[in-house]
Amino acid sequence: MTRVSILGATGYTALELLKILVQHPHVTVSALTTRQDGNPKISSIHPSLTGLIDLRCENLTTEQVGERSDLVFCALPHTASMEAVPQLLDAGCRVVDLSADYRLTDPGVYEQWYGHVHTDPTRLRTAVYGLPEIYGDQIPSADLIANPGCYTSTSILALAPLIQHGLIESDGIVIDAKSGISGAGRTPKLSNLFSECNESVTAYSIGSHRHTPEIEQVLSDVGNCKVQVAFNPHLMPMDRGILCSIYPRLKNSVTAEDLLAVYRTFYAGQPFMRIVDHIPNTKDVAHTNFCDISVRMNRSQLVVFAALDNLIKGASGVAVQNMNLMLGLDQRTGMLPHK
Amino acid sequence: MTRVSILGATGYTALELLKILVQHPHVTVSALTTRQDGNPKISSIHPSLTGLIDLRCENLTTEQVGERSDLVFCALPHTASMEAVPQLLDAGCRVVDLSADYRLTDPGVYEQWYGHVHTDPTRLRTAVYGLPEIYGDQIPSADLIANPGCYTSTSILALAPLIQHGLIESDGIVIDAKSGISGAGRTPKLSNLFSECNESVTAYSIGSHRHTPEIEQVLSDVGNCKVQVAFNPHLMPMDRGILCSIYPRLKNSVTAEDLLAVYRTFYAGQPFMRIVDHIPNTKDVAHTNFCDISVRMNRSQLVVFAALDNLIKGASGVAVQNMNLMLGLDQRTGMLPHK
Amino acid sequence: MTRVSILGATGYTALELLKILVQHPHVTVSALTTRQDGNPKISSIHPSLTGLIDLRCENLTTEQVGERSDLVFCALPHTASMEAVPQLLDAGCRVVDLSADYRLTDPGVYEQWYGHVHTDPTRLRTAVYGLPEIYGDQIPSADLIANPGCYTSTSILALAPLIQHGLIESDGIVIDAKSGISGAGRTPKLSNLFSECNESVTAYSIGSHRHTPEIEQVLSDVGNCKVQVAFNPHLMPMDRGILCSIYPRLKNSVTAEDLLAVYRTFYAGQPFMRIVDHIPNTKDVAHTNFCDISVRMNRSQLVVFAALDNLIKGASGVAVQNMNLMLGLDQRTGMLPHK
Amino acid sequence: MTRVSILGATGYTALELLKILVQHPHVTVSALTTRQDGNPKISSIHPSLTGLIDLRCENLTTEQVGERSDLVFCALPHTASMEAVPQLLDAGCRVVDLSADYRLTDPGVYEQWYGHVHTDPTRLRTAVYGLPEIYGDQIPSADLIANPGCYTSTSILALAPLIQHGLIESDGIVIDAKSGISGAGRTPKLSNLFSECNESVTAYSIGSHRHTPEIEQVLSDVGNCKVQVAFNPHLMPMDRGILCSIYPRLKNSVTAEDLLAVYRTFYAGQPFMRIVDHIPNTKDVAHTNFCDISVRMNRSQLVVFAALDNLIKGASGVAVQNMNLMLGLDQRTGMLPHK
Repeated sequence: MTRVSILGATGYTALELLKILVQHPHVTVSALTTRQDGNPKISSIHPSLTGLIDLRCENLTTEQVGERSDLVFCALPHTASMEAVPQLLDAGCRVVDLSADYRLTDPGVYEQWYGHVHTDPTRLRTAVYGLPEIYGDQIPSADLIANPGCYTSTSILALAPLIQHGLIESDGIVIDAKSGISGAGRTPKLSNLFSECNESVTAYSIGSHRHTPEIEQVLSDVGNCKVQVAFNPHLMPMDRGILCSIYPRLKNSVTAEDLLAVYRTFYAGQPFMRIVDHIPNTKDVAHTNFCDISVRMNRSQLVVFAALDNLIKGASGVAVQNMNLMLGLDQRTGMLPHK
Repeated sequence: MTRVSILGATGYTALELLKILVQHPHVTVSALTTRQDGNPKISSIHPSLTGLIDLRCENLTTEQVGERSDLVFCALPHTASMEAVPQLLDAGCRVVDLSADYRLTDPGVYEQWYGHVHTDPTRLRTAVYGLPEIYGDQIPSADLIANPGCYTSTSILALAPLIQHGLIESDGIVIDAKSGISGAGRTPKLSNLFSECNESVTAYSIGSHRHTPEIEQVLSDVGNCKVQVAFNPHLMPMDRGILCSIYPRLKNSVTAEDLLAVYRTFYAGQPFMRIVDHIPNTKDVAHTNFCDISVRMNRSQLVVFAALDNLIKGASGVAVQNMNLMLGLDQRTGMLPHK
Repeated sequence: MTRVSILGATGYTALELLKILVQHPHVTVSALTTRQDGNPKISSIHPSLTGLIDLRCENLTTEQVGERSDLVFCALPHTASMEAVPQLLDAGCRVVDLSADYRLTDPGVYEQWYGHVHTDPTRLRTAVYGLPEIYGDQIPSADLIANPGCYTSTSILALAPLIQHGLIESDGIVIDAKSGISGAGRTPKLSNLFSECNESVTAYSIGSHRHTPEIEQVLSDVGNCKVQVAFNPHLMPMDRGILCSIYPRLKNSVTAEDLLAVYRTFYAGQPFMRIVDHIPNTKDVAHTNFCDISVRMNRSQLVVFAALDNLIKGASGVAVQNMNLMLGLDQRTGMLPHK
Repeated sequence: MTRVSILGATGYTALELLKILVQHPHVTVSALTTRQDGNPKISSIHPSLTGLIDLRCENLTTEQVGERSDLVFCALPHTASMEAVPQLLDAGCRVVDLSADYRLTDPGVYEQWYGHVHTDPTRLRTAVYGLPEIYGDQIPSADLIANPGCYTSTSILALAPLIQHGLIESDGIVIDAKSGISGAGRTPKLSNLFSECNESVTAYSIGSHRHTPEIEQVLSDVGNCKVQVAFNPHLMPMDRGILCSIYPRLKNSVTAEDLLAVYRTFYAGQPFMRIVDHIPNTKDVAHTNFCDISVRMNRSQLVVFAALDNLIKGASGVAVQNMNLMLGLDQRTGMLPHK
């Protein structure tokens, strides 16, 4: 059994990670950390885990975590991650980092969007971006995985086939992203109160959302060209899920059927990608690691729809996919029946 | 007191209309119709009206309605409306038609999008499109108002100033519209069940939604040019409200502040238009007749946001605005304090 | 015009109060206070008020408020209220206090449930409990109104007729109360986050909720006997509304019809009380000042249902009712059409 | 592999059943039926099953189903079930019937509550009531399991320990049950529309809900005495979950801690029962087969809280528990990790 730990166990991503890990046949959860005092049981922080795991959260040093773990999921906020990760790697652990700290390869871009100097810039080029459908060949041997953002995965998975095949213009791609509130995290703020969000739809961070450079970096890599997107995140009055409605400009006239065939080929053999005929909705992917994609032609305007669960395929599920690949396991292990 | 009636009183728009009319100082509700048997009290169909209005719904002929009414709100389905409206007009009533039957000026376009031959085509050119912020000068003297669709009003109000001033390209305007479920009406269908809609976001009728030609017709009229939009409606897990996020292409570089100034001038003196600095959300306009608009630049991509309550400013509130103008009243009467 | 002010203008009750006051024909809002710096416009705190009121919130002393006001709504937290209220009264203002500070007549009971010594105990006996359907005769001449709690009003209105007529046992009354999340206020806490509340129903404060002694005090007064309730509040995944399902023990066998007649007599002439045949639901009273009540016999067990909007009839609407009575106006003024 | 089929595959219980069965290591789904024409793929009826199961729904006779199946889940409406079940048993299948047709042992009681004469009355005494925590010893050898109702399971699991130990009075037990809307099924009706249910809490079927005799029958059997309950179901604006707040009268004074100990002993070794210290909520059990129970003393009034997912532990999850026991498997198989 591989010993796995979670740094920062009190948030929603840690909760979803634990729900998968307790069902996983090849790992055992060996340590959970929190800065809360008193070593609270994880089931007192997340009561839904009662009867599933009995571990206490401890205020451990990364050294202590390193001793107990073969692989660590780092669910700390950005900047806290780039402090902890080097120590974990030095302690011989492999790391899946769920923060944004190792996602951008250019420390200047990181500083520009996050407002902090990156303190571990050399690792930005060696960390592997943990989107298995794109970088599946590099993940098995990686020691440090930068687990993607939720909006990012949705947007990239929706656009990668079109960008790689040069079917759309690489600039001016409008992404209208619609997310449930759990994406805003578990820290109380006015903006994620029930009575503010319920019966409300709005947009936020137009032009300044930090998933923008991440989307552009990966798509530019996939297409070997400079990709530029207008990313527009919206909040929906629901808990789970992201739907991206994407409006690229086609280079040449093409039918929806042709494009669906491109997607089906691109994602052939990928167990979590479902190219569907109907328009995806978030409910069909909620509580799963699936990403559903379809396309429509609105007269001459192509519309690509992609839906996933922001906490699973957008965070903790893909983290387990990455872990599975790192451990030489089938990527479905613990999530989907196989064989 | 003006005697007003509602044809088709069982739906959500009739309910919202009645909530306003019972507070209105210058009208009295004189007849309500339904095809249900037994002359049910309106408060048994809409229990929230208990104590506000005691009228019974009757299975009346249009002739009977005409005798009892000075002005009729026609809340029938399309095709039923174009049967009733001519009779009501012949009976000497003025009519605000909330269906789609008199919105499109070209009977061929009507037939193309609604799949029915229009049986009253000559009136299509004399009916006045009831968007007071655009056609306010024609409404007072009109006998037949075609009350606009909910998505339509949101989209037109958001785009009219830009189109009129020639600030954006007139084609390829992407409208990503997000609506609450009440827009789907009160007739039970799988697609508007709670357990289907809750925690779900999806799109529908891409390329085929019937509000498309209506948006294009009015904007083409406003801009004196052929406007073409890609209209993409989405359903949100909420009851009330529409947010349109609109992605036009600017002709020339301009700042968000410049554009806000254009909007403020265009809508100066319009009591229900609020040009706001923050991004609008549906909750702020729910249960009101306001339409909130703002703009953002996402790098070089303009984004226009417009929010309104689909049942009020998108249907019944604007119907009362129209009625007020037809009766020579301040358009705020019954909805907003004034003077 | 009566000059009215609100102490503590940033919460949900202040918002609902303002929505009513801006429509009220006989008052003008003259001051709003907050401890936030910078004199923010009230529309920047509550964007839904844009275009309705343009006042700034100021960090005023109670003396300054007193100078500008004839009547003050005090929407401060408990303990803060009993500091401000004496000063406002000394300044010659009449006060409607929306906190709990003047609701309990016995300072010992206050200390027991709120954990603070009451610093203004003599006024506890002169403050009038602001439930117009019960204490309507005392309100017109009062200078200090203790505006009731939301659960309290629902429970009292549901039980008062039965208690007064001695139809039920006065002890062991089980109240199962179901409230929307807005009752928890606008201060961010883990327990009122969207992702915690959505798709969740739970109970809280069993045996310790502070509305308990308030319910018992008023019902004991109404029945001239010692009333004891088991009050059990629950949170529902919705914004607005309370439904109380109440299980009293009948002293003698009686039909539901008999009881409805008792309620109809008790509340005759009360414009905001609706005794209905159907089981009330929260949606029918949302955004109104109505309280809907009905009863059912479940075999031999009586069940009383009462529903109201916790922010309106449970807080700000009843506050305006109280104000209207204090000002010698029809209590419906600003809320319901009349005459 | 055991061949299992589902009669009536289009509803929510069938969907949840399939989600579990496709993950189950020892069964294969061999047939799905519907009365819809055209042999639709199950993934076109439930798009969330795309990629998980590819079977078509067929309009099969029970004979055809019998040939393909070792065990059949009957998810038909009541009365349809009692037609199909005898044929399935005759064909040599074992049956888990999710309808109400075999739950009541007395055909007279069935007729009284369901309004139909029971056409297979002799089997009412041989069918085993499928609540494994109560009748776990009888399930392994049963050929026909009457799978319990969702409210029923919640209520029985909450009360059985108290009834068996004679700790509470056996009559006048008030059950205030709060359910999500999915319990109302997938057939479109006005009462389960999003815009009717959202932001609404109400009660229904007071005194007439058909789960009442089922609760009383099982508890009477458990306690060997006549149990009588006042069952009061409410609808909550959420999709999944039931919370029952139960108000029994204690025979003797006892502490909450004593009672929790009673529950822990009663349910010792039951993997899906969680006796918790906190008040349960529906979110913690949603999408799981757990039932969470706790108790509180509200002064002298005992309150028992029990929460479960109405579609899983209240329907499809317990159906799989039953199937596991019938097949000699650990009851957790396919749902919880074990060994």
